Amino acid sequence: MAILETRRDGAVMNLTMNAPERLNALSDEMLAALTDTLDDCASDPDIRVITLAGSGKAFCAGHDLRQMTAMRQAEDGGAAAFKDLFDRCSRVMARIQSMPQPVIAQVHGIATAAGCQLVATCDLAVAAEDTRFGVNGVNIGLFCSTPMVALSRNIPRKQAFEMLTTGDFIDADRARDLGLVNRVVPAEALSDETAALADRIAAKLGAAVKIGKEAFYAQLQMPVAEAYAYTGDVMVRNMLRDDTAEGIDAFLTKRSPNWDQ
Amino acid sequence: MAILETRRDGAVMNLTMNAPERLNALSDEMLAALTDTLDDCASDPDIRVITLAGSGKAFCAGHDLRQMTAMRQAEDGGAAAFKDLFDRCSRVMARIQSMPQPVIAQVHGIATAAGCQLVATCDLAVAAEDTRFGVNGVNIGLFCSTPMVALSRNIPRKQAFEMLTTGDFIDADRARDLGLVNRVVPAEALSDETAALADRIAAKLGAAVKIGKEAFYAQLQMPVAEAYAYTGDVMVRNMLRDDTAEGIDAFLTKRSPNWDQ
Amino acid sequence: MAILETRRDGAVMNLTMNAPERLNALSDEMLAALTDTLDDCASDPDIRVITLAGSGKAFCAGHDLRQMTAMRQAEDGGAAAFKDLFDRCSRVMARIQSMPQPVIAQVHGIATAAGCQLVATCDLAVAAEDTRFGVNGVNIGLFCSTPMVALSRNIPRKQAFEMLTTGDFIDADRARDLGLVNRVVPAEALSDETAALADRIAAKLGAAVKIGKEAFYAQLQMPVAEAYAYTGDVMVRNMLRDDTAEGIDAFLTKRSPNWDQ
Repeated sequence: MAILETRRDGAVMNLTMNAPERLNALSDEMLAALTDTLDDCASDPDIRVITLAGSGKAFCAGHDLRQMTAMRQAEDGGAAAFKDLFDRCSRVMARIQSMPQPVIAQVHGIATAAGCQLVATCDLAVAAEDTRFGVNGVNIGLFCSTPMVALSRNIPRKQAFEMLTTGDFIDADRARDLGLVNRVVPAEALSDETAALADRIAAKLGAAVKIGKEAFYAQLQMPVAEAYAYTGDVMVRNMLRDDTAEGIDAFLTKRSPNWDQ
Repeated sequence: MAILETRRDGAVMNLTMNAPERLNALSDEMLAALTDTLDDCASDPDIRVITLAGSGKAFCAGHDLRQMTAMRQAEDGGAAAFKDLFDRCSRVMARIQSMPQPVIAQVHGIATAAGCQLVATCDLAVAAEDTRFGVNGVNIGLFCSTPMVALSRNIPRKQAFEMLTTGDFIDADRARDLGLVNRVVPAEALSDETAALADRIAAKLGAAVKIGKEAFYAQLQMPVAEAYAYTGDVMVRNMLRDDTAEGIDAFLTKRSPNWDQ
Repeated sequence: MAILETRRDGAVMNLTMNAPERLNALSDEMLAALTDTLDDCASDPDIRVITLAGSGKAFCAGHDLRQMTAMRQAEDGGAAAFKDLFDRCSRVMARIQSMPQPVIAQVHGIATAAGCQLVATCDLAVAAEDTRFGVNGVNIGLFCSTPMVALSRNIPRKQAFEMLTTGDFIDADRARDLGLVNRVVPAEALSDETAALADRIAAKLGAAVKIGKEAFYAQLQMPVAEAYAYTGDVMVRNMLRDDTAEGIDAFLTKRSPNWDQ
């Protein structure tokens, strides 16, 4: 059984982290599998949406503390290994947002520390009612500094600070109210609801979604005037596509677009 | 009948987009009328608040797709015309925020694509209960890249991404909960409630509101330390005004300020 | 009676602004006392959390308008004195966020203008049910330009603009829904609930909380890629601490950490 299972369903690629005995920790192996698989998906134009779930009791409980503790045996006390680990982890997070396809987190059980970061990083998230979210590294003396990069760009400032310094969990309804997840559904409906959302997006013109996702994260980091200059050019590029011309013509003539995808 | 009607009510200028048969699309004519009228309002010191509404069934349904399709006949396939169009549209959006007066969107029916962007761009928005909001260009293969500049600066990230990639509408209550509008009122109370909000702001010292609005958008784009240095200077400038001295004196002596405006 | 009372309770330092007859205005004396006391707290490694409350009917009603009016007697009409005042006030706000300890606002009654800014600036806030919040300088012709720096980084844009231009109060529940405060509690439970939150954070490893708070505000102002590079280094530094090694070992061996703090 692979540490990251893949299941293709039409234009949707479903990924499942599969190390349930370690609560799907972001171990060296898991990070490597995510990196390789995401790269493969990125280069496959027939995949238009990706979902990411976890097997077993948890979505993901963050870093693998046993592996990290073992790294302390090095001469430098682990400094180089830790740096390398956090670099690899941050690259996976960046990769999710640089993918041409939307990535939907399908979350259940617990999502803590870098596991909560993974939820915050995915473009969209659907959570089971029983999910608990936390950035609770502070409980063991390791502040969730990298997870907060993603978290503090998803939810309001004071609420992020509270989670980070108290280590308290929030439940799924609270996560939705704060903006951390898009939808909360009964546990038994989780995979169906995630699939329905994935299918809804997969039915759009993949090229337009790709253009838009790239622009979404780019413009968020620009001053407004620069963002408008940039997205204006993006819109021109989008307009000049033949399949967009077809989509607009279909709309104006009240028929379905004929998109060969 | 002008494509943009103006109705002056004391210190409040009410603008109504008036192309109901095209759902008040942001056509070349509408963009030109908005540009000219906003410029006129900006130079009139007796106008202290502006409202913006739409006639007919919709507030605004975005760009005029028939005009845009016609632009494809050019030798370059429309590239130059599209670029010019998005530039003109973005300048109207920037103009709304650079106006010396607050601009309140009075929204009903539908506000989609660049129409939703218009709501997000106005300083304030009052919506009728029946309003539906969407950035649904993705449905026709044209991702709402310029609208997302305004939308993603109004509502949380994941909720913006969901609207952009699913093309789904949200209703007025949801728009208020996400921060896209300030108030939701029954349809029959929409104009009265918008007028009441406009009057409330028009009763303030216009010079102070002008100073504050300019500073509001400027400081949002600065690092915190720079924002404090800048707004500190703004406060000094505000304090040195005679009418502000009068306002503070009136407060300290428990009387109404005598503002000649 | 000092203008800023201090009461030490274990690792928690409780500060109470004590000028009730002036609604704890941020007078020259209050700003000086806050500056000195915060500096003292910052250099005391045994203090792990700070709370900030107000005595009397209000938490804080902002600047001292009588002192400010007196400044107008200077030859420059007060320009230099106003600038100096806003500089000192902004430095107190910056100091709160640069403290090594979390600062929790314990809010009741009213928090207006720079008093509302103080709430927005503190890392966390607990409010009594009866609290009213406002940035209502616009009512006297003095737009709350410096307060909006903090406010607009706590709550959504349109809701901040509405408060700033209408001068309207919001109640405690609304403040919580918008993100301005973390918790709303009955007035009679305010100090106990604030103390409980303070104790919860004081029980964490102070060194980790200090590392995290500094990184929290620093990364918020960085582009995402830079934020990850920076926080990755912060995590390495955190991991290399002996007390963090102890915390992780305690977790892995299912015992309580032996932190000598």
